[in-house]
Amino acid sequence: MRAVDIIAAKRDGGELSRGEIEFLIAGYVAGQIPDYQIAAWAMAVYFSGMSAVETAALTDVMLKSGQVIDLAGIGGPLVDKHSTGGVGDKTSLIIAPLVAALGIRDPMMSGRALGHTGGTLDKLEAIPGYRTNLSTEEFRRIISSGGFAMTGQTGEVVPADRLLYALRDVTATVESIPLITASILSKKAAEGAEALVFDVKYGSGAFMKEPAMAEKLALSLVNTGAAMGKKIIALLTAMDEPLGRMTGNFLEVEECLDCLEGKTGSGEGPADSSDLMEVTLALASRMAVLGGKAADAAAARSLCEDCLAGGKPRELFLQNVASQGGDVKKLLELRGVWRSPFAAEVKVPAGAGGYITGIDAWKVGHAAVTLGVGRGRTEDPVSPTAGVEFLRKRGAAVQPDDVIMRVWSATEEGLAASLPRLREAVSYGASPPPPQKMVLKEITARDKTGTGGGAE
Amino acid sequence: MRAVDIIAAKRDGGELSRGEIEFLIAGYVAGQIPDYQIAAWAMAVYFSGMSAVETAALTDVMLKSGQVIDLAGIGGPLVDKHSTGGVGDKTSLIIAPLVAALGIRDPMMSGRALGHTGGTLDKLEAIPGYRTNLSTEEFRRIISSGGFAMTGQTGEVVPADRLLYALRDVTATVESIPLITASILSKKAAEGAEALVFDVKYGSGAFMKEPAMAEKLALSLVNTGAAMGKKIIALLTAMDEPLGRMTGNFLEVEECLDCLEGKTGSGEGPADSSDLMEVTLALASRMAVLGGKAADAAAARSLCEDCLAGGKPRELFLQNVASQGGDVKKLLELRGVWRSPFAAEVKVPAGAGGYITGIDAWKVGHAAVTLGVGRGRTEDPVSPTAGVEFLRKRGAAVQPDDVIMRVWSATEEGLAASLPRLREAVSYGASPPPPQKMVLKEITARDKTGTGGGAE
Repeated sequence: MRAVDIIAAKRDGGELSRGEIEFLIAGYVAGQIPDYQIAAWAMAVYFSGMSAVETAALTDVMLKSGQVIDLAGIGGPLVDKHSTGGVGDKTSLIIAPLVAALGIRDPMMSGRALGHTGGTLDKLEAIPGYRTNLSTEEFRRIISSGGFAMTGQTGEVVPADRLLYALRDVTATVESIPLITASILSKKAAEGAEALVFDVKYGSGAFMKEPAMAEKLALSLVNTGAAMGKKIIALLTAMDEPLGRMTGNFLEVEECLDCLEGKTGSGEGPADSSDLMEVTLALASRMAVLGGKAADAAAARSLCEDCLAGGKPRELFLQNVASQGGDVKKLLELRGVWRSPFAAEVKVPAGAGGYITGIDAWKVGHAAVTLGVGRGRTEDPVSPTAGVEFLRKRGAAVQPDDVIMRVWSATEEGLAASLPRLREAVSYGASPPPPQKMVLKEITARDKTGTGGGAE
Repeated sequence: MRAVDIIAAKRDGGELSRGEIEFLIAGYVAGQIPDYQIAAWAMAVYFSGMSAVETAALTDVMLKSGQVIDLAGIGGPLVDKHSTGGVGDKTSLIIAPLVAALGIRDPMMSGRALGHTGGTLDKLEAIPGYRTNLSTEEFRRIISSGGFAMTGQTGEVVPADRLLYALRDVTATVESIPLITASILSKKAAEGAEALVFDVKYGSGAFMKEPAMAEKLALSLVNTGAAMGKKIIALLTAMDEPLGRMTGNFLEVEECLDCLEGKTGSGEGPADSSDLMEVTLALASRMAVLGGKAADAAAARSLCEDCLAGGKPRELFLQNVASQGGDVKKLLELRGVWRSPFAAEVKVPAGAGGYITGIDAWKVGHAAVTLGVGRGRTEDPVSPTAGVEFLRKRGAAVQPDDVIMRVWSATEEGLAASLPRLREAVSYGASPPPPQKMVLKEITARDKTGTGGGAE
């Protein structure tokens, strides 16, 4: 078997066998196949696509490049969710304790902020003392006691993905549906979940700008997952505007605590967390269905709402904070007061007014990186306390001088640089925009072959 | 400027600027751009193609990565020809002295056998003493005195092509029209020719199996050459059957000497060198037109035929052999007798007969490698005296036991392994096949943008 022949076969639109895929990927991880051959193959995959069978084989080969966590015997259905990433996307911190309160076990392995999107690990680490580098033993023990644990991937989990992603990042081969699918699914399969709900976002602040592309990815995820024997549901959700009232690491933890306490607005402006809760409940209710806790999504949603109102999810969240080394007392003390030193407000300018027709999530996300919320490179540190609080969002009737955002920056320069971008992110109109549908579509496994090329 | 953005632009079908192409290629040669980025870019070019302007820019950037030979002041029009390669393709050895006899200067830089196709340098080196590693000074002096010189490329000529070709060879990105165009044209532009005739072959023994693909390459060569200010004509010629009566290094030198002496058959069978001479005269007459020696191809062809009959080309060939260190006396002594030790014949089998409808050039080419004529890897040596002499070819009426080929091998195993393949290469039919048209089409520069992707 020669790598060049496998690359040529994919280039010419052929379907690779599992053996051929394993030869390439296992050989790459072992240092026997050079990166230039993998780069050419990845670009050929970008153009020629992969069938569901090929994508499942790639996922499985990647999965088996490292440690697969075995949570058998831990009790309870093992269900997790994954988001393709967005701005203000903090649903995990509410969902994990919520589904745990329903009796589901959620083994959640998350990532960090990169580019304009936030990262669950960075948010959690804004809680003083909180550790996201759990050992497998700790991960298992904390899930067992509190129903869920939230950690980063260890170096032993899917090393093929780390290598491949780093290569794709510098060879313009990130945007390939089958490669994205295998990257996501291999990591999720490694953490021990039996069933998965995917939040596939579309819109300016999402990785996929168009619903059609997001749907392709969603279909690829559910079909490939099905080929691997996983139960999977994907939801297409809107990411045109930052989700919820807060963008920032500690700020988002605060918003989640508010939501866990049934408080969805600050009272200082019309902006609230209803869009966030809409997505959160949609995802959690699908997890409840996959976990066998409700017959359908509607019944599951009532169950979730009742459960939240009962207060158990808040209790499990704080228990988890303590289990993972976080200082619950300090978290509650700092709430509402711990902010970065350089602050400003974004107001409706003179001459504007009417209605806010949108706040561009992509622009906010990039401005937030400048404030210190995210990072330009993987190795950069992030600020826990930088960020943006929205008092008014899409649909709000406004007049000049109304406050739209409160902004906190880790540095003075960061504040100065981000303010014009935050102002630009807001658009105005004379009449109110149509209501935003947060959940566009539910995608479940069906008989459909081919996950398509990224270029299609 | 970032390489990943340039790769993404090409992936998305954009046209790269000269600056972007230079950034990639000059950076690659300088070791600043890693091979995995060039591999991904080459695969993106394979799928997205390049415009004529981009291909010309790539060619020029590659050309300028190394030494460009300046033959100004050498006198006479500087015209060369290039073949995309075939089996038994020995036209260079007749064409160079022929056009030199017409007063054209031919600065011929050639390559070696690779895969199933032969190499001009290997054929010339079968002449005892013949040197193909001329210095630039020797190259210039020998052209000046004898009208032409035949040499290999020095390490200083187009280093970008050597690097890029080696990478394309292992990343399944060889078969890209714009990359092939830039590779061929940059080397030809570096040798100092002002005008070029391309022999673009199609058929089983050619790089391009289909006339349509060969025509695409021909169009790309003439249009890109025109964009670079070169006068170019391309001919599409047939390569379904080995060209001429001989395949092998010294054997082909002998056939050329025969042709230079007006002898096109051995008298032992109906096979002759008429197909070879058809292609040779078609190419040489276009060179004569580009060199201003005749008004059109028909007039140029008469000129070439008369010139050959006059004997001057043979004289210039032997003068060149002596100039490049070859032993003319030995060449003439060895002629007809110097053969590899392991010999056999391929005969018409019992039960077959009627007419030979074809001898598959691809199969003969691969069998010839096994005999020792060519090489599997660049560093392998070749045998001067191995090869095949054809007594009967396409169209010959045959009966069982008629000799089709005489075969000589450097090794006993090579002979045993190649004989079944040579037998398989011959096909028979009850009626004679239609005559083979050797020159399908002439392609000259016209206004046409885009050289297309290899996958089209």
